[in-house]
Amino acid sequence: MALFGGKKHQAFLGMDLGGSNLYSVAFDFELKPIFHSKIDTEAREGYLHVIDRVALQIQELKKRLEEEGYDLAGIGLGVPGLVQSEHGNVIVAPNLGWSQCKPVRDMDLPQELKDLTVLLNDVNAGLLGELHSMADQPSCAVAYFCGTGIGGALALNGRLIEGSLGAAGEVGHMVVRSGGRKCGCGRKGCLEAYIGKWALNDQIQKALDDKKKTRLKSLISYNLKKQPVKSSSLKKAYEKGDSFTTELMEEYYCHYLAIGISQTANCLAPDCVVLGGGIMEAMGEYLLPVVRNELEALCIGPPPRLQLAELGDLAGPLGAAISARRGGALA
Amino acid sequence: MALFGGKKHQAFLGMDLGGSNLYSVAFDFELKPIFHSKIDTEAREGYLHVIDRVALQIQELKKRLEEEGYDLAGIGLGVPGLVQSEHGNVIVAPNLGWSQCKPVRDMDLPQELKDLTVLLNDVNAGLLGELHSMADQPSCAVAYFCGTGIGGALALNGRLIEGSLGAAGEVGHMVVRSGGRKCGCGRKGCLEAYIGKWALNDQIQKALDDKKKTRLKSLISYNLKKQPVKSSSLKKAYEKGDSFTTELMEEYYCHYLAIGISQTANCLAPDCVVLGGGIMEAMGEYLLPVVRNELEALCIGPPPRLQLAELGDLAGPLGAAISARRGGALA
Repeated sequence: MALFGGKKHQAFLGMDLGGSNLYSVAFDFELKPIFHSKIDTEAREGYLHVIDRVALQIQELKKRLEEEGYDLAGIGLGVPGLVQSEHGNVIVAPNLGWSQCKPVRDMDLPQELKDLTVLLNDVNAGLLGELHSMADQPSCAVAYFCGTGIGGALALNGRLIEGSLGAAGEVGHMVVRSGGRKCGCGRKGCLEAYIGKWALNDQIQKALDDKKKTRLKSLISYNLKKQPVKSSSLKKAYEKGDSFTTELMEEYYCHYLAIGISQTANCLAPDCVVLGGGIMEAMGEYLLPVVRNELEALCIGPPPRLQLAELGDLAGPLGAAISARRGGALA
Repeated sequence: MALFGGKKHQAFLGMDLGGSNLYSVAFDFELKPIFHSKIDTEAREGYLHVIDRVALQIQELKKRLEEEGYDLAGIGLGVPGLVQSEHGNVIVAPNLGWSQCKPVRDMDLPQELKDLTVLLNDVNAGLLGELHSMADQPSCAVAYFCGTGIGGALALNGRLIEGSLGAAGEVGHMVVRSGGRKCGCGRKGCLEAYIGKWALNDQIQKALDDKKKTRLKSLISYNLKKQPVKSSSLKKAYEKGDSFTTELMEEYYCHYLAIGISQTANCLAPDCVVLGGGIMEAMGEYLLPVVRNELEALCIGPPPRLQLAELGDLAGPLGAAISARRGGALA
């Protein structure tokens, strides 16, 4: 009890750095949230500006924690890109316009705060967070975060696999059709080129151009050329029984997602695949049985258990805080 | 020295159970080969017969080791199928016609020999063997054994990843083209359906039917419908500059192999990919630079180092013996 008594006022900051927002949650030693904070990332102002904002935010939240009687004992920062957490490096973060940056080293922070900070990939953080909330820990888990892009992460026995230069877990860029649709990454036939939101936009735009009857026409008031389709629009049309949307999501989306999942299943034979991201949050309960059914025929071994992510926006900060509490994403 | 002195007469048997042969090598404590033995598997006689032959072989080789002054301290048995080494189970071994067998438990061996025996997948054994011979140990390695089928294996920090029910590492059955060529596994578009030897047979047969000019016509005296093309035939035609064979191997084979390797690269970001099997043994030195070149454009992160397997038939028995010396494939 003496040890734990010494730790009970420790707090950990979990931060999720996105293209639009920096979302931070302070957790106590038992990983219960103390408070939240969200600020604009202001990514367009460039790398150094964003890093300054992160540093400022850390100092502010540290002060707030101290006022509430906590010591800041660790900071986890999830970044959307290739991260070498061991070295505190971000190799590249396309959505932030970063490449070859070393944010922690470059942050205008006292050394003791730098020493408390661990970096990790944002989807890796999300998987760590989701694993934490599971009753039975899978020995191997793969995450698919399905939104505008398809993010991925791998964990063996609760430890992340980062791979050489942090490039492991890019499940959205495993090929489903060699020579197929062009992907945003510059390659062809990636899963993301089939089920990323821009790919869904293409399918929907084509249906609208072809004057197909679909409720999506009235639900989409935004410009599909400039903005990815909203999960909520798809959900509404699907729930109304719109036949185009049903076909799009069940026969197209679920089909390619199942092929994508079978890729990692046949490579790693995970016990569990965690499905998160905007589309899964909105429609996962409808789509999972369809994917599960397709998967039966696609896996060499028994198909992995499919599980919806449950924590939403909290997963990333929680995973980042867990990583900080452990003393590193891979520890 | 006392401890090592006690171990210096320990020997380990590494056995590679194939569809045609059971190849066994006895190794001393320092993993130097003592002697080899090869017998027919007689797989057509069925599961119990093969198990009897393995048990008999173990007893004979144990006797021979004792005559030479060695104690048999461990036995590793590589099996071509899905193996749960932790439980000593073979889930399925298609080339042997086995399913749901538990060979070690079923073998007619004294209990103390059963207790010495560890089971593992044959390609997993091959990768362990190859890793043992490398000067610098990759932190993550993937093996592609390219022959009639495409076998695969994964290791993190020198430890195998078996996955749920031993189904990890099936790199030959990761999809390269959804809805593509039918594979022997019953699914469509697997890598093996493009570059397994039966797929090469199809390509060659089509060229012969189309009366394409190729040296392979005179080099192939066997029936391509019943026998997979020999790596030596391909090598000869390639070395003579036969343009059909050059195109087949460089533009078709290497292209699909590179896509296959990029799949695991984007999933796991390994530092090293080990290429073995009949085709690589025969022609790897010619094909590797072509694959390496293709790979540059296909990987999200830096492409893994490609390395030819160096031990040939010895890799499997060596890996099996290593696994026995460790006390288990995953230990």
